[in-house]
Amino acid sequence: MRRVAICGLSMCKVGNHYHKSLRELFAKVALDAMENAGGPPVNAMYVGNMSSSEHTSQKNIGVLLSNSIGLNSTPSMLVECADGSGGAALYEGFKSVASGLYDIVIVGGVEKMSEATHGENRKISSKAIEQECEAFNGLSIDGEFAIIMRYYMHYYGVPKRQFALFAVQMHKHAARNRYAQLPYEVSVEDALNMQTIADPVTLFDTAPAGDGAAAVILCPLERAQEFTDTPIEIAGAGQASDTLALYDRKNILTFKATSEASKIALESSKLKISDINLFEVHDSYTISGFLALEDLGVIERGKVGQSVEEGLIDLNGPIPTNLSGGLKARGHPMGATGVYQAVESSLQLRGEAGKNQADPAKVALIQNAAGIGSLVTVHVLKRV
Amino acid sequence: MRRVAICGLSMCKVGNHYHKSLRELFAKVALDAMENAGGPPVNAMYVGNMSSSEHTSQKNIGVLLSNSIGLNSTPSMLVECADGSGGAALYEGFKSVASGLYDIVIVGGVEKMSEATHGENRKISSKAIEQECEAFNGLSIDGEFAIIMRYYMHYYGVPKRQFALFAVQMHKHAARNRYAQLPYEVSVEDALNMQTIADPVTLFDTAPAGDGAAAVILCPLERAQEFTDTPIEIAGAGQASDTLALYDRKNILTFKATSEASKIALESSKLKISDINLFEVHDSYTISGFLALEDLGVIERGKVGQSVEEGLIDLNGPIPTNLSGGLKARGHPMGATGVYQAVESSLQLRGEAGKNQADPAKVALIQNAAGIGSLVTVHVLKRV
Repeated sequence: MRRVAICGLSMCKVGNHYHKSLRELFAKVALDAMENAGGPPVNAMYVGNMSSSEHTSQKNIGVLLSNSIGLNSTPSMLVECADGSGGAALYEGFKSVASGLYDIVIVGGVEKMSEATHGENRKISSKAIEQECEAFNGLSIDGEFAIIMRYYMHYYGVPKRQFALFAVQMHKHAARNRYAQLPYEVSVEDALNMQTIADPVTLFDTAPAGDGAAAVILCPLERAQEFTDTPIEIAGAGQASDTLALYDRKNILTFKATSEASKIALESSKLKISDINLFEVHDSYTISGFLALEDLGVIERGKVGQSVEEGLIDLNGPIPTNLSGGLKARGHPMGATGVYQAVESSLQLRGEAGKNQADPAKVALIQNAAGIGSLVTVHVLKRV
Repeated sequence: MRRVAICGLSMCKVGNHYHKSLRELFAKVALDAMENAGGPPVNAMYVGNMSSSEHTSQKNIGVLLSNSIGLNSTPSMLVECADGSGGAALYEGFKSVASGLYDIVIVGGVEKMSEATHGENRKISSKAIEQECEAFNGLSIDGEFAIIMRYYMHYYGVPKRQFALFAVQMHKHAARNRYAQLPYEVSVEDALNMQTIADPVTLFDTAPAGDGAAAVILCPLERAQEFTDTPIEIAGAGQASDTLALYDRKNILTFKATSEASKIALESSKLKISDINLFEVHDSYTISGFLALEDLGVIERGKVGQSVEEGLIDLNGPIPTNLSGGLKARGHPMGATGVYQAVESSLQLRGEAGKNQADPAKVALIQNAAGIGSLVTVHVLKRV
């Protein structure tokens, strides 16, 4: 297996890009990423997207998107595993370069949520959970996370306020991120008093669905200097799944796929979790942010809220987490989210993260999950 | 890159499996394929499917399907590129084993068309073509193939009867295939007199949409003897794309992705097209079967109909093609079709193809295409 580097990257602000089509949104970002890598010839493309089939009636969007940047022969593949698609596309791209099959690969993530109404988008989001037994009997993805959050509160004796604190922290980070969908600070009272979506999940326990596109260019590490002065190595990659259905789980207070994927990624990178300087985790709901940090082994079970209150995951804390603002405040463009995490962490490792720059920033870990953690991809990124 | 073999396989009859859900249909076939390989431990799964998001509202079906056979941690990925998904999933699985990342990979294809009405399925099928300019202005996938077929007839001065002969030949093969959706012979007159779908495309120029599931188990060639007495090597694999939109093409009488993908596959297998004993090509319409054989360089341009009439692609001819009955008569379970081709060709190379057994059957080539050939995957399979 060859070592793999990120040698180019780009993303757009998450939000409502009403005036741009799916392909326009993607093309600008992908071309910028190519330019960022000095315009190397591309061998293949992997795309993460969840819902273009609903939003634009388009299947086979790998080819649509490669065409959009002038690639009319290059293999281009859509990888779909709900809102974990971006991380999964990165993983497929990584493997293709690591294997020696391809030298230059574009990994893109794109989602155009503003094509549909809010109500339609909630239905589409719930396609991420098990349908036959759970969704068809009335559960939504909000409902599943409400069950998990309520049980967490009960089991660890944790008040709702601790979740609100997480949202506040995400907004604090997002306020300094010009690519964020919600770049402003909020108070704990604001977060606590938001309307309930599925008790105890309030609006501020969920992530906003936005339009977004992000792309990274991968190459063999040994060739990275041809394309960039600041290569970022994908030092480790891991992927694992869990049951799709919540009712199939023995313990709903852990997403075991996160632990397993991070174990594989860390082992392959020959690093320990304590070597990681910063994290981007999949907080599609505040509770999934909590579980991610616990399942990664970064924070003790039941103590995430307390750790947030103590400033541990802040830019200036010992375990800076979601400096982008996370899914909560950077926004959650579904199938693109995992690629956003890769771009944001790479900028941190390059020292180009602006007002949110962490120090030290030598090693980052990104965790992207599908639905209720049914499939999780973890990558360890390292400054070369 | 390691050499890769198919060490287990299974498929079900294509047809209307009203009494089985998507996961039930897949689970039986996948478990049979596992048993066929002696039940090795599985490292990962790749699934080809086009429309579960419409048919069953389920995203992330990689995990649904891995769960269905008791795999609750194994990474499992949906690859979607319309009706080219099965071949693309095989390609991703091949790369994963070739790279050394995984030892045992299941590649599955599944589609449950009977969940929707015929009218709904026609709409879903048309999601394979470009939406913004072509579909939204009234073109369907039938319409696009009608344009290509009419131009072919005009350009080469070929009568409609030659296309009917292709359909007749497919049915002749399917009549001996117990897995075929339409296992009966038809006359040229029957085929010619079928109702018109989109002039000149008649019902018998199209492939029936059926439910289906197929699976192969991949392993490193060096380990294949552990799992089977009849390993089939994936000696070459190639993939290429074309424009998604028909209007973007300079020449609509060639699917250039087929030529490019087969060139890559043949080069990597160190074989010539003349070394191939049998073919499975993507005849989603009779015209796409024609173009496949021309783009592969097997039959001279404009001469496919004549070659069919002369018996060249018959079981007893020099270039036996679609002995399964092809998409036309074995049936076209969309995202599963590419995996069917792999199973059928492997059975031929094993000498287990029953009444349709070709001789010699040492090397086979399979070609699976998305929509109007927008993405094509070609694999060369070889008896070890």
